[in-house]
Amino acid sequence: MPAGKLQVIPLGGLGEFGMNCMAIRWGDDIIVIDAGLMFPEAELLGVDIVVPDLSYLLENRAHLRALVLTHGHEDHIGALPWLLSEFNVPVYGTEFTLAYVEGKLEEHALLDDAVLNEIKAGERFKIGPFTINPIQVTHSLVDCVALAIHTPIGTLIHTGDFKVDPTPTDNRLFDLHAFAEYGKEGVLALFQDSTNVERRGYTPSERAVRARFQEIFARAERRLFISCFSSSIHRIKLAVDQAFESGRKVALVGRSMTESFEIAQDLGYIDVPDGLLIHPAQMRDFPPDKVCVLISGTQGEPMSALSRAAVDNHKHARIQPGDTVVLSSRIIPGNEKAIYRVVDHLFRREAHVIYEDGSSPPVHVSGHASQEELKLIINLVKPRYFIPIHGEYRQLKLHGEMAAAMHNSVGSVMLIESGDILEFDELGARKAGKVNVGRVCIDSNSVGEVVEDLVIRDRRHLSEDGIVLPIIAINKLTGRVETSPEIVMRGFGGSISDDGFMDAARRTVMNTLESSSDEEKGDYGMIKEKIRQDLKRFIVKNTSRRPLIMPVILEV
Amino acid sequence: MPAGKLQVIPLGGLGEFGMNCMAIRWGDDIIVIDAGLMFPEAELLGVDIVVPDLSYLLENRAHLRALVLTHGHEDHIGALPWLLSEFNVPVYGTEFTLAYVEGKLEEHALLDDAVLNEIKAGERFKIGPFTINPIQVTHSLVDCVALAIHTPIGTLIHTGDFKVDPTPTDNRLFDLHAFAEYGKEGVLALFQDSTNVERRGYTPSERAVRARFQEIFARAERRLFISCFSSSIHRIKLAVDQAFESGRKVALVGRSMTESFEIAQDLGYIDVPDGLLIHPAQMRDFPPDKVCVLISGTQGEPMSALSRAAVDNHKHARIQPGDTVVLSSRIIPGNEKAIYRVVDHLFRREAHVIYEDGSSPPVHVSGHASQEELKLIINLVKPRYFIPIHGEYRQLKLHGEMAAAMHNSVGSVMLIESGDILEFDELGARKAGKVNVGRVCIDSNSVGEVVEDLVIRDRRHLSEDGIVLPIIAINKLTGRVETSPEIVMRGFGGSISDDGFMDAARRTVMNTLESSSDEEKGDYGMIKEKIRQDLKRFIVKNTSRRPLIMPVILEV
Repeated sequence: MPAGKLQVIPLGGLGEFGMNCMAIRWGDDIIVIDAGLMFPEAELLGVDIVVPDLSYLLENRAHLRALVLTHGHEDHIGALPWLLSEFNVPVYGTEFTLAYVEGKLEEHALLDDAVLNEIKAGERFKIGPFTINPIQVTHSLVDCVALAIHTPIGTLIHTGDFKVDPTPTDNRLFDLHAFAEYGKEGVLALFQDSTNVERRGYTPSERAVRARFQEIFARAERRLFISCFSSSIHRIKLAVDQAFESGRKVALVGRSMTESFEIAQDLGYIDVPDGLLIHPAQMRDFPPDKVCVLISGTQGEPMSALSRAAVDNHKHARIQPGDTVVLSSRIIPGNEKAIYRVVDHLFRREAHVIYEDGSSPPVHVSGHASQEELKLIINLVKPRYFIPIHGEYRQLKLHGEMAAAMHNSVGSVMLIESGDILEFDELGARKAGKVNVGRVCIDSNSVGEVVEDLVIRDRRHLSEDGIVLPIIAINKLTGRVETSPEIVMRGFGGSISDDGFMDAARRTVMNTLESSSDEEKGDYGMIKEKIRQDLKRFIVKNTSRRPLIMPVILEV
Repeated sequence: MPAGKLQVIPLGGLGEFGMNCMAIRWGDDIIVIDAGLMFPEAELLGVDIVVPDLSYLLENRAHLRALVLTHGHEDHIGALPWLLSEFNVPVYGTEFTLAYVEGKLEEHALLDDAVLNEIKAGERFKIGPFTINPIQVTHSLVDCVALAIHTPIGTLIHTGDFKVDPTPTDNRLFDLHAFAEYGKEGVLALFQDSTNVERRGYTPSERAVRARFQEIFARAERRLFISCFSSSIHRIKLAVDQAFESGRKVALVGRSMTESFEIAQDLGYIDVPDGLLIHPAQMRDFPPDKVCVLISGTQGEPMSALSRAAVDNHKHARIQPGDTVVLSSRIIPGNEKAIYRVVDHLFRREAHVIYEDGSSPPVHVSGHASQEELKLIINLVKPRYFIPIHGEYRQLKLHGEMAAAMHNSVGSVMLIESGDILEFDELGARKAGKVNVGRVCIDSNSVGEVVEDLVIRDRRHLSEDGIVLPIIAINKLTGRVETSPEIVMRGFGGSISDDGFMDAARRTVMNTLESSSDEEKGDYGMIKEKIRQDLKRFIVKNTSRRPLIMPVILEV
């Protein structure tokens, strides 16, 4: 690495959706901003999560000083266990972000060895040659920061994810003044969130949802189920406030909702009056119009609480005629079919279902800045170089074009993608080569058991453990399974493939099918996931191996 | 079947998206309205198309009199070859609809034996006890009709697909007067298109796109590629008119676009001035600003002309920096990732890409009626019974609720789904049992060769031919194939699975991989489809069997 040069190297998230991770290097010192995951595409069947390839950091292991987090969303912290198990560097994040991180590290038995440093907006800290100033921003999550990174040749600003919300529910305002100050002092480069560059105007405040919630609470005559991302703390707070005002008890259903709620409550983001919370099993003790349920599963995830409630397969959460179900979230592209399948099940149970349909007031608002907010920040910061981050290629490109048209605010636009080395020195900035980047597929244990022995394994190891394809023929008319399930295995070891093992594996699949309702069997996403989980449990228990399991449904 | 009763039995399309098909029975006479297909869900990997189960018609083979078509979209006529190969009944449709039907039947060698009867809006015809009056409606396609079906106990109106377009590009107006007349005379039941029941207000006219096209043509400095559904005749006409006015030649790229264009031209829906059309190979002879290309593939279909052009894999259509590419269609839910992948490839080639982003004037408008149009037709028709059709369950339910609130316009709302028997007699209407319905998966020959020996085969037969899973490990970093492809077969006959055959199959897959660019290998949807097609060709040629082929990509 040549002296007097600053390098910025995105390792994920530029030119792809998710997996945000960026290395910043001065001489022998590297810091990393965020370490996120990506949810796998449908084409990568059988994979749980995807994380960035960290070859560059492995090659420069000796220089890695710290990981700095902007906020607690999975696409910014989800790869953290993977990164920390390789490099146990200190982690810097705000109180709320670190609370999420702790839960994650505990699950992977990495918490005891981790060094977590709490940072606060406005309080500078130093890592090697870098001085970092976290700046309060607003987003769909709470306690989010942008980072001003002071380097020997100038200041970089990394926005993290943000919108400019003038009325956040926690009243912690976006620190416009800090951005304005930096603009006056001079900023070498601004790295800005491109997610909503295609949206005109302003993104509405988180508080805009309140009016809709009031309407919904006023009208609901029976039980009210509200589903949102478990990290949508603003949304959860609004729901809790309304439940209290309207005399409804609140039950939490779903692991992620429960965990996130507890963190937000512990840290004072949600005020819960005494006696408001009830255990899900207590729902039956209250009249339907006195119950509000906060439930996980707003994206139609096959085994989530809401998906299971929608087909009468949840112990506590049952949907009854006249209940109201609110999906307070956006429909992530790719999830439409799964979500509408859940909505259909809810309609069949005569529930009133409320979802984002463009009506006003909105039941959901985005957490990312639209065009006018993006321009506002650019006007305030007036960077010498502008670099769009956090987006697919078209979004980066459009964002770059938008900034390039902002004369007097932006010097030059640099369009880079994951793996590009962006080099700054006294002469200016340029692309200076590439490093290896890519995606690594991980098989996490979604069953939720044996967590402490859960090893983070990449797909290469997985494929050494072989691949198992249970093939099931379901008669569409009757919903019946037509023949005994076929199980195809490859690279799974000859000794195990004896008849007794195969018969037992087949029986495991049959049991899963027999214990599933016709509605579940008609929902291929759900039945495949059930088969995958049950068969995985069986195979891990009997062989201690973790093959890739990809159920195949044949409709006959 | 009891005397004096009229039965209406939806065989597809109610409670699911696509596959519209409805039987109407009086005594010993059955007619069928439409016979559509459904595009398979991602869960049904390896299947080309899905058609309705026709068990009910098979059981009542002797009573089937005719198939009557409302319009020529695939979800209304796509199952026709499948139906006609079982029951060679007369088919009734408008001139344009029959032109599409002819092409389809010819492909399946069914045209010679088919009896096709052309119908015209406003000209009644009789089939057994039914007198049918086709009523001109407007839609995204041309020459579409609703059907007024006079039965011994009253008139049914089936809207087909429609919107109320006051200014269609062919100037053939929606026949509001006919609906008004029927409303005065009295209508037993109205069956209405539910597609857009969630949209408020009015759907804009097809002509609304014209203003946007004018803007785009005025600004495009180099080649202009316009992609829309090949059946969007209004859209194609607008593009051709603008190309002529702006002095651009028109090239047609993609089989479906070419075929549909020819039909529309033959029937006078598109006026093509002499010398306007050029062969795609002639593009290079004209300056870039004198060329407009109408190209298939607006949904990101892996092997479509546009997808291939986007990765430099099309003989004639190459995208160059500064070209403009217009996607004049909606993003069908489930296709987002495929479409945005194509858009990203186009951006990387420095094309200007214009797609539906909510801006005005619109680059695409829907073909289906929004709430105010739906209400207008209900107000005109004033049916005794109202039955929502053509929608997923939530849409039928919402449509029913909307109609139920229209006092003095609607007697009763009947909510039925595919398979329900809706029975009418002098006492009224009721659900009277169920018939078997379901989905049948078909393996059509998408390669486009050996069409005449293409047998329509359902999934049951397919599974007798076995299943072949080519498993390929691609290194995400290098794009290289890591190991020789594994091929797993089941139920494919012992004799064939000898080593020579397996080696040759493996080589086929290797050849496909070697002849593909890194960009193609990085696009799993596309590389899987290429492997599937090549391997299928190899297996059909060498074994005359047609197993189900499902490529599996392992990322390592």
